[in-house]
Amino acid sequence: MSPLAPRLLEAARAAGAMLATAESCTGGLIAGAITDIAGSSDVFDRGFVTYSNAAKIDMLGVTAETLEAHGAVSEETAREMATGALARSAATLAVSVTGIAGPGGSGHKPEGRVCFGLAQAGKPTVTETVEFGAIGRAKVRAATVEHALTLLLEALA
Amino acid sequence: MSPLAPRLLEAARAAGAMLATAESCTGGLIAGAITDIAGSSDVFDRGFVTYSNAAKIDMLGVTAETLEAHGAVSEETAREMATGALARSAATLAVSVTGIAGPGGSGHKPEGRVCFGLAQAGKPTVTETVEFGAIGRAKVRAATVEHALTLLLEALA
Repeated sequence: MSPLAPRLLEAARAAGAMLATAESCTGGLIAGAITDIAGSSDVFDRGFVTYSNAAKIDMLGVTAETLEAHGAVSEETAREMATGALARSAATLAVSVTGIAGPGGSGHKPEGRVCFGLAQAGKPTVTETVEFGAIGRAKVRAATVEHALTLLLEALA
Repeated sequence: MSPLAPRLLEAARAAGAMLATAESCTGGLIAGAITDIAGSSDVFDRGFVTYSNAAKIDMLGVTAETLEAHGAVSEETAREMATGALARSAATLAVSVTGIAGPGGSGHKPEGRVCFGLAQAGKPTVTETVEFGAIGRAKVRAATVEHALTLLLEALA
């Protein structure tokens, strides 16, 4: 269990926040980490595991134009994933991730690149890119989960 | 990584199947297990992490009547989750889980009870209930993931 998960549950409870996740490369592991904790139903509404591009479009309203112009692994796609998750849930705070877990890069994008989005009711949506490097698929995914939990914690602080 | 995950990827590839998941108590861990494997995008389309009842209704089309009459942890709800995931994805095979990871039971239902659904294009939807018992939240969730992967493998055999 991530040590951040119980802290996140406490922080979200204290803030009266409800969370949602929109995940590509982590495939559900962020939602899985949050719901490791008993009582997480108080603060976790739902998660979207949008592995295919069609899922990103159908489930989150990511536009085909954005995917075409910037690719699935881009801050533009992460932004639309996060705002889509916020709009299509009961959440007040949503995190999104889309990246290249590897092995190997994709097109011009290197293995270990992950784009994050954070959408919060009444606040600007923020995106960022982290280059975790070619540390291996499992490590990229685990580091992405921890980083997403950290972003949620920071947003609630 | 689950030893079943690479076998599932191979079996789904061989069958030309596409998978989707609909998870409540596992919170995304089944999708996470499937996507542990590089190349899983060939066989995994999307996952629905429907932790709240509202998410089950919105994302999967579970009816309020079913939730009211049978509860979220029931084969009736598992059935509607699985058929909803199949209908709302590009998948040819969908698995659903809804259960009580604990600690503690809920209403008249004991800790460790998990209901599963398996929906497959052109075949009858199957549901079942497994009583994992009060073995602890993490173990119930892990056992549920393994059982779901086993059901998918059996369906592809």
